[in-house]
Amino acid sequence: MSATRIRVATRTPYEVVIGRGVLAELDSELSQSSPAAVLSDTNVVRLHAARLGRSTSLPRLAVAPGEDSKGFATLERVLDFLLASNLDRRSTLVLFGGGVVGDLGGLAAALFMRGIACVQCPTTLLAQVDSSVGGKTAVNLRAGKNLAGAFHQPRLVLADTDTLATLPDEELRSGLGEVVKSALLGDAQLFALLERESAAVLARDAEILAEVVTRCVRVKAAIVARDEDERGERKLLNLGHTFAHGIEQAAGFGVIPHGVAVAVGLTLALEASERLGLLEERALRPRLAALLAALGLPGDLTALRARYTVRLASDELAQGMRHDKKGRAGRPTFVLVRGLGKVDFDVELAEQELLVVLG
Amino acid sequence: MSATRIRVATRTPYEVVIGRGVLAELDSELSQSSPAAVLSDTNVVRLHAARLGRSTSLPRLAVAPGEDSKGFATLERVLDFLLASNLDRRSTLVLFGGGVVGDLGGLAAALFMRGIACVQCPTTLLAQVDSSVGGKTAVNLRAGKNLAGAFHQPRLVLADTDTLATLPDEELRSGLGEVVKSALLGDAQLFALLERESAAVLARDAEILAEVVTRCVRVKAAIVARDEDERGERKLLNLGHTFAHGIEQAAGFGVIPHGVAVAVGLTLALEASERLGLLEERALRPRLAALLAALGLPGDLTALRARYTVRLASDELAQGMRHDKKGRAGRPTFVLVRGLGKVDFDVELAEQELLVVLG
Repeated sequence: MSATRIRVATRTPYEVVIGRGVLAELDSELSQSSPAAVLSDTNVVRLHAARLGRSTSLPRLAVAPGEDSKGFATLERVLDFLLASNLDRRSTLVLFGGGVVGDLGGLAAALFMRGIACVQCPTTLLAQVDSSVGGKTAVNLRAGKNLAGAFHQPRLVLADTDTLATLPDEELRSGLGEVVKSALLGDAQLFALLERESAAVLARDAEILAEVVTRCVRVKAAIVARDEDERGERKLLNLGHTFAHGIEQAAGFGVIPHGVAVAVGLTLALEASERLGLLEERALRPRLAALLAALGLPGDLTALRARYTVRLASDELAQGMRHDKKGRAGRPTFVLVRGLGKVDFDVELAEQELLVVLG
Repeated sequence: MSATRIRVATRTPYEVVIGRGVLAELDSELSQSSPAAVLSDTNVVRLHAARLGRSTSLPRLAVAPGEDSKGFATLERVLDFLLASNLDRRSTLVLFGGGVVGDLGGLAAALFMRGIACVQCPTTLLAQVDSSVGGKTAVNLRAGKNLAGAFHQPRLVLADTDTLATLPDEELRSGLGEVVKSALLGDAQLFALLERESAAVLARDAEILAEVVTRCVRVKAAIVARDEDERGERKLLNLGHTFAHGIEQAAGFGVIPHGVAVAVGLTLALEASERLGLLEERALRPRLAALLAALGLPGDLTALRARYTVRLASDELAQGMRHDKKGRAGRPTFVLVRGLGKVDFDVELAEQELLVVLG
C-alpha cells in the first residue's frame, strides 16, 4: 500500500503523509537541518523507538504518558532539554507520540527561541486524525484544559498507521470519537464507511484504517486552510467539544479519554439541536447512536457515567463548560447540527435548555 | 506638550503614543472590549496606580519587581489570574510596568486561549524606548535569558513620560544604555542630542526625555516594520546584546541592569569592530566613551566589574554567549559597527578574537 500525501494550504503550507511505514521519511527530512531532537513518551519509546531509523540516535526526552504531562512543569522541562541538546533557531523538534506529546511539544517548539520547526509523528488514532494537523498546541492550566497555547503549524506530519497496531482498545475508541465527529461534520461517505465497516475498523484492518485517517485529515485540512486562526469556520471542528470539555473537566483531566468524551458530546449536540428545532435530518440521532454502539463507544451520559463510575452531575458539567475558549466569558457557545455535513457554529444555549440536555 | 503618535507598520499595525499624561487614553481604548485585566508590579502600583483612571478598578495582579518574576512559575500564575478574572478571547490585558511586566505579560497574552490583545503601558525608560515596541515577549529559562517566548504585537502602546519621574537613577541609566544603542544604530542626530544634552537627560527634563523616547521608537518601528519576525535586518537591534547577554548570564540574572550591560556591550562591539578592521569611523570609539561617561554609564568591562563587584572572567563571558538566540548552536554572532548608523549583523568572531575583547 502506498502513502497518501495531503497538502495543508496554510500560510506556510505543509504535507501530511499517511500510510504504513511512512516514518521512514523522517531521516531524509532532518538531514538538512541544524541539531534536532525528539520528544516522546515512555510507552511510545518502548514500543516504537526502532521506527525512528537513524533518528533513534538523536537527543531524546520521553515524558510520562498521560494528561499529567501536559502542564507548565513539563513544558519547562522540555525547553530546558532543547537548550541542553544545543538546539538553535534552525533546529527541528520531532514529536513522536499521541496528543499529549504533540500538543506539549508543539508548544515547546513554538516558544523555544520564539519558534523552531517541528515534525509531528502521531502514533495514536486521535493524533493522526486530529491533533497533529492544524497547528493547535497547548498545555493545561489547573482550572482548565488547553487554556495556554499557540498556533504553530508543523513543517511536516508523518502519520504512520503501523503504529496503530499496538494502541490499547480504549485509545483506539477514543480516536474513533474524533473520527465520527469528522464524518458527521464533513464527510457523509466516511460516515457510511464506518457504519459498514465498524468490525473491520475495530479489528484494525490496515487498509480501512488508512482510508479513515486520510478522509479525516482531508476534512480537517480543508477547514484549517480556510480559517487557520479560528476566526470563524474552524470552530466547526469543535463539534461535540464544548460538551466534551465540560465532561472532562467534571471527571478530572485524564479520567475519561478525550475522544470518548467527544463521542458523548456528539450525542448531546444532536439532542440540543433537536430541542432547538434545528435538526432537520431526524434519522441522524438513531444512526449516530447505532454507529457509536457498533464502535464500542458510550452513546449518552448515562452509559458514560456507568462505564467510568463518575458522577457528572448536570451543574458540574455546565460549570466545566464556562471556560470553553470558544465562548465569551461564562457563556459557552456550541456547534449544532442540521444534518449530516450541515453544521452551525457560535450557537448559544439558554442555561435551562443546557441543564435539560445534561440531565 | 502634546502627544506624539508613531505608527508601527507590522502585519496588524498599531500606534505608539508618547508624551506626558498619555495614560489617560487607556480607558477609552478598553471601553469597547470584553472583560479586561491589569498586570503590573508592586512598585509601579504603589507609585502610579492612580494614573490608570477608571481602569484602577479592573482585576489586577502585581508581581514582585525584578527579573525573578520572569519565569515559568510566575507565567503560570498570571495565566491562572486571567482565567480567574473571567477573561475570554476578546479580552485585553493591560501591561503596566517595565520590561519584566511587558515581556512576561506579553507572553501570557500570547498564550492565553492562544492569544488575546494586550496594551503595553511601559513605565521605565528601557521599556518605553525598546521592549514595549515590536512584539517580542519572553520568559527566562534557568540556563538562559528570554529563551522561551513569542512574537505578539500589542494593540497599542501608551508611553507616558510622566512615569519616568519616579524611576530610580540606576533604572534611568539602564534605559539610557538602550537609547545610546538606538542612536548608534540609526539616528546620528539623537547621538548628537545626547552628547549636547546629557545633563538635561539626567535631570529628567520632560521635553528632552519625550524627544529621546520618540526618536528611539522611530528607529525601532522602522526596522520592526521591515522585518517583523527577525529573519534579517531586525537583528541590528541586537547591537551590543550578544555581549550584554554574556555579561548578564555570567553575573547572574538581575545583578546588572540590562541596559547597563548593553552600554558595555556597545563598547565591546566597537572594540571588536576595530580589531576586525571593520570600523571606518575611528572617532566613534572616543565619542562613545565620552557619551557613556557623561550619562553615568560604565564604559568598559573594568569599570563594570568595579561598579558591581563581579568577576566576569573572559571565559565565563564567552560561555554565557553560547546560547544567544541569534547564533547557531554554540557559535554566537555579533552586530558590528562600521560607523554611526552603519552597522552589520550576523558577523562571527573567532574564539581567539573574542577572548581578547573580553579580557
